[in-house]
Amino acid sequence: MVLPNHGANPQYFVNALGLQLKENSIDFSENVNPLGVPKAVLQKWAGFAETIHTYPDPYASKLREKLALQNNISIDQLLIGNGAAELILLIANYFRKKKILIVEPTFSEYRDACLAYECEVIRFQLFVDDNWQFNLEGLLEAIKDVDAMFLCQPNNPTGTMVEQTILLRLIQRAKENNVTVIMDEAFYDFSDEEISILPYINDFQNMIILRSLTKMYAIPSLRLGYLISDSEIVNELKRFQQPWSVNGIAQQVGLECISDEQHTIRTRAFIRSERKWLFHVLSQIGYEVSPSVVNFYLLKPEGSNDDLNPLITFLIENGIIPRHTYNFLGLEGKYIRLAIKTRAENDMLLNVLERWTQQ
Amino acid sequence: MVLPNHGANPQYFVNALGLQLKENSIDFSENVNPLGVPKAVLQKWAGFAETIHTYPDPYASKLREKLALQNNISIDQLLIGNGAAELILLIANYFRKKKILIVEPTFSEYRDACLAYECEVIRFQLFVDDNWQFNLEGLLEAIKDVDAMFLCQPNNPTGTMVEQTILLRLIQRAKENNVTVIMDEAFYDFSDEEISILPYINDFQNMIILRSLTKMYAIPSLRLGYLISDSEIVNELKRFQQPWSVNGIAQQVGLECISDEQHTIRTRAFIRSERKWLFHVLSQIGYEVSPSVVNFYLLKPEGSNDDLNPLITFLIENGIIPRHTYNFLGLEGKYIRLAIKTRAENDMLLNVLERWTQQ
Repeated sequence: MVLPNHGANPQYFVNALGLQLKENSIDFSENVNPLGVPKAVLQKWAGFAETIHTYPDPYASKLREKLALQNNISIDQLLIGNGAAELILLIANYFRKKKILIVEPTFSEYRDACLAYECEVIRFQLFVDDNWQFNLEGLLEAIKDVDAMFLCQPNNPTGTMVEQTILLRLIQRAKENNVTVIMDEAFYDFSDEEISILPYINDFQNMIILRSLTKMYAIPSLRLGYLISDSEIVNELKRFQQPWSVNGIAQQVGLECISDEQHTIRTRAFIRSERKWLFHVLSQIGYEVSPSVVNFYLLKPEGSNDDLNPLITFLIENGIIPRHTYNFLGLEGKYIRLAIKTRAENDMLLNVLERWTQQ
Repeated sequence: MVLPNHGANPQYFVNALGLQLKENSIDFSENVNPLGVPKAVLQKWAGFAETIHTYPDPYASKLREKLALQNNISIDQLLIGNGAAELILLIANYFRKKKILIVEPTFSEYRDACLAYECEVIRFQLFVDDNWQFNLEGLLEAIKDVDAMFLCQPNNPTGTMVEQTILLRLIQRAKENNVTVIMDEAFYDFSDEEISILPYINDFQNMIILRSLTKMYAIPSLRLGYLISDSEIVNELKRFQQPWSVNGIAQQVGLECISDEQHTIRTRAFIRSERKWLFHVLSQIGYEVSPSVVNFYLLKPEGSNDDLNPLITFLIENGIIPRHTYNFLGLEGKYIRLAIKTRAENDMLLNVLERWTQQ
């Protein structure tokens, strides 16, 4: 049985399990904003058709300027990509054949990209008993002889975050040891606290911050992400980027998205209150969750240490698509990952989960 | 003065020259279909908005199946990319640090990609006096000790093509010498003759055919290309491709495009007759053109051997944007490249060109 490496596209996952995808199934494996796409995007959609016959701006200048302004950095510190996935590959290529540490469990693409580019990959494991936090001393020791490290913050799939004072000690030591810290902040804007490491970008030339526009603005179909780093690193990465990497629709939609500040504010408030309520009910009906600060979480039945394949099957048969965790190192199928969706959808999830523990 | 490496996006080109882009300028530097986008794409455009919140199919399965069927190959011989540009980079990465021959003048991206990936690049030059045809014996000699070669067929920027019997002798010898031939057929479908080398794909495991959907279907904004090769090469290239490389809108639009067979037929007929008329008038008003079989051509004033910067300036000041040839090896600005556009637009071009020779 070969399962897909990523969430979303439930058809492939369900088929790989030998099951049927029920009509009107709800995809909890996809971590996009349950409030959907900013209204302006849909209002202006028709007009975008008039531009598809022209080449996209190869420099994505308008989007880059606005993102640089919003993030209070200079334009040459910013690189836009065909989704963060393109940027991860550019980073892996930049560190080709080098030694890379990855804090696991995390987004499997870091490892896949590093292995494709013949990096030596070192695994640093987080544990549920530590609330998925890393032991700082252990990590400082582990990075001594690596060239770079990937840290997802807040982390996918746990949804957990590390305190900024600890992060800063890590990055400082990394700087002293010539280690580049790649901080994936794909979900940072779902947290209601200001947790980005961005304010320190000019103190640390050894940092690359990854961002995504597809989760918060619910536009994964269009592919849009960016990274912020030292301008010299940006220039090196750019050398390997294809011309017209970022399609023209994504550029236009991206501009509309980041102009809608209310969308992020509303989303954060919704996710915070929905998560609080959901976690409360889940604990009442017999489930443990990871202490997520964002829009997804790990879940398992209380006290369970089993492979959750039977629960996955039950959920799928009842129209709920979870994210399997077989390719998250250290989880190996003992958890599932679920997105926080609309209240109606979350209610359906709770209903099915409750039937599972009661059977 | 740093000029853009590619056509399209006239604003950057005109600004680099220190000129102003006139309102309603016509972009003759962009080689897309003057008949525009297939109607079905525009009719269904509104519906595509409903899909932007879901991830694209990472395997682009529907599009891949249909393309494989139309091209009479198996699915595993086909790789879809975020424009042919992505595929060129994947190929350069595959041949990293190897010796690559490029038949020049041609699309500058082959060279740029190969140099980024530290290939040793060998130049094989075509000349106007040979009607931009290569000397077969010379080329057979030149490929003896290379690992791969790029040949654009029909060639960009000349629009010229090589006879298939000659191509087959080249590919056969390449096979004997373990040389991979990368045949870029980005514009093959604008020719009214069947010129593709595809029927021989299963005879030559040493061949990679590049195709583009953005030129014929006038959708460069969306990024969509594919390649056809031996399934083992396809697998190797795919290892370095990012997940969700091809955005969801491009996949849906691509399916609509390739279902409209009349679009290609109408386009070929239009380009053939328009080119014939245009070349006739151009020769009457004092210009030489390359014997193009497709929708663009090289042009210079009869007998000229000068840098055409003054002509470029004159054209831009009169609302016509040509493609400069400073970064086409062997042309170095002594020609301009022009697209074949609608009759009204071609008329405007002729009008300005006529004023230039008469002044």
